[in-house]
Amino acid sequence: MIRKINHVGIAVSNLDAAVKLYSEVLGLKVSGIETIEEQKVKSAMIPIGESKIELMESTDPEGPIGKFIAKRGEGIHHISLEADDIEKMLAKLSNAGIELIDKKPRIGAGGSKIAFVHPKGMRGVLLELTSKK
Amino acid sequence: MIRKINHVGIAVSNLDAAVKLYSEVLGLKVSGIETIEEQKVKSAMIPIGESKIELMESTDPEGPIGKFIAKRGEGIHHISLEADDIEKMLAKLSNAGIELIDKKPRIGAGGSKIAFVHPKGMRGVLLELTSKK
Repeated sequence: MIRKINHVGIAVSNLDAAVKLYSEVLGLKVSGIETIEEQKVKSAMIPIGESKIELMESTDPEGPIGKFIAKRGEGIHHISLEADDIEKMLAKLSNAGIELIDKKPRIGAGGSKIAFVHPKGMRGVLLELTSKK
Repeated sequence: MIRKINHVGIAVSNLDAAVKLYSEVLGLKVSGIETIEEQKVKSAMIPIGESKIELMESTDPEGPIGKFIAKRGEGIHHISLEADDIEKMLAKLSNAGIELIDKKPRIGAGGSKIAFVHPKGMRGVLLELTSKK
């Protein structure tokens, strides 16, 4: 069962400038900034209601966000939906013939479980599933 | 003040197939399908927590969704944030030198006020602002 939009991930070329835009112009507040080595990004989390916006700057041109920006420019990169039971949801997707990037969940920010689904099976949407630890 | 993510808009080439994917595989429920002549789309709203996913199929290749899909393929099209006072937020964006697509709000689904901000000033993100009627 999917409960909420956990966050929307946005690829940016300059995290400081993007944070300034979302805070000074839109009046939103950053709750934390962290570098995620494994994904080669520096990311800022901005809570909005029960969800968040994640602004992501690449730390390496060969990383996924670096490649995304080189190909498509800055913009919305993924949507993350929070599921009660991520393993069950991955099994359901897999049984429906949808290609998974992560066949098993891995550990993401704050100890949550995360798994990416390939955009091919999701009509062009890079979908992240997440569940609380 | 921005209160929540109202919805995330996703451009799809086949609404029936997309609805089937979100309902049968992800277990989500469509709350309504409507054709919005002005925007040349047929759209399905899918509530998730306090937000929604809007699946949009173009009804005209010359419409905004038709052009988006021709250029970039299916995928995430826009994010809509709900503001207390949309006029105040538009004035703030305009004062910061950010280009607006809609200088004044127009009436969207269910009588809400909506206005689009140009992706140029939002680091590649097509941002919709919305507020309740």
